[in-house]
Amino acid sequence: MTDLSGLSLSNIKKSLLNGEPLIVYDFDGREEEADMVFYAGTVTWKSVNQLRKDAGGLVCYVTGKEEARKIGLNFLTDEWKTHPVYQSLIKKPSYGDYPSFLIWVNHVSVSTGISDSDRASTIRELHNLLTDHIENKEEFFMKNFYAPGHIPVLASRGLDERRGHTELVARIAELVGLPRSMVIAEMLGDGKSLKRANAEEYARKNKLVFLEGKDIIGM
Amino acid sequence: MTDLSGLSLSNIKKSLLNGEPLIVYDFDGREEEADMVFYAGTVTWKSVNQLRKDAGGLVCYVTGKEEARKIGLNFLTDEWKTHPVYQSLIKKPSYGDYPSFLIWVNHVSVSTGISDSDRASTIRELHNLLTDHIENKEEFFMKNFYAPGHIPVLASRGLDERRGHTELVARIAELVGLPRSMVIAEMLGDGKSLKRANAEEYARKNKLVFLEGKDIIGM
Repeated sequence: MTDLSGLSLSNIKKSLLNGEPLIVYDFDGREEEADMVFYAGTVTWKSVNQLRKDAGGLVCYVTGKEEARKIGLNFLTDEWKTHPVYQSLIKKPSYGDYPSFLIWVNHVSVSTGISDSDRASTIRELHNLLTDHIENKEEFFMKNFYAPGHIPVLASRGLDERRGHTELVARIAELVGLPRSMVIAEMLGDGKSLKRANAEEYARKNKLVFLEGKDIIGM
Repeated sequence: MTDLSGLSLSNIKKSLLNGEPLIVYDFDGREEEADMVFYAGTVTWKSVNQLRKDAGGLVCYVTGKEEARKIGLNFLTDEWKTHPVYQSLIKKPSYGDYPSFLIWVNHVSVSTGISDSDRASTIRELHNLLTDHIENKEEFFMKNFYAPGHIPVLASRGLDERRGHTELVARIAELVGLPRSMVIAEMLGDGKSLKRANAEEYARKNKLVFLEGKDIIGM
């Protein structure tokens, strides 16, 4: 069991499986942003409610690029590399890495797609698809989801290639022995991203695990 | 001056230009959802803050399809019609209309793209691009924005073709004589979309104009 700021991996896993969020800060000098993170297998409308009210950023589904390929999805930065017009829009953001967005989807069962319960449904259906024993995942995905929708799907390129929340969060799943199937949203303050100290305070008050990139990298 | 629930168009315009949001409900039997709506030309970080905290849905930029074409953008449902894989994801949502999403962008000046002030910057820069006298708008857009980003751009197909918030809000701009350059987010309750009565109550309490689709159609 690797020790991480006094927390064992089994405690982190227990938290996630209990449906409690982690708070994950990336790195000083990169985005300097904390994300609220749930394990997708536990997500209910209450998790989405907490993500939008207490975190405030985009509520995104995170998986690995290998899983994404199994359901037929590529990075938009790759999709648009050869697009006659949109290729001009592919640029590196100021923090230096290409975005990890693939596509925005809804499950076919939802109403408008945006309510807490609709977003929870889309997330749980993505989770089930990627973790259940389904023979042809791509066919299943294409039949049961539609795009453009309200849940951005992000995929990890691995920490060797990119050091964003997407990769950190996928890595946490690997470290604790869960499928790479997570949900994240950026924690925002009034006007700006929530400062690290305030994100730590939120974690303390709500008795949540607070992790940072350099600890995750070092594990 | 057309009368609308006792409100004149000049009062609606004044509200919008003062940076106050309208609350716009679509139709019974359609989404049955209320959106919070700002004129993009007045948007500051405080507007984005109010959209994410009091409304809670996706903070989207709305324009017309003619303006979108001028900056090189198409509906994703058209872009993907011929895509070998993604064409299977194009489906009509349960409320019956194809989505009005074009693309998700950030302005090149932003930091992570998601904070209130970053989203306000992207919105104001989209507004300036579409309303200023810029010779080659597409070139300007491709140079100064990147994708995938954090602000979904929606375009109105016109109310004859689609009766969503995108079209209703673009129509309001036309009716009051402003450019089609608006910002919207769905109003959410705990778990479900905010009920119409609660959206009306929010409007009353905050002295905001409440409009509904059938009034806008009839104008």
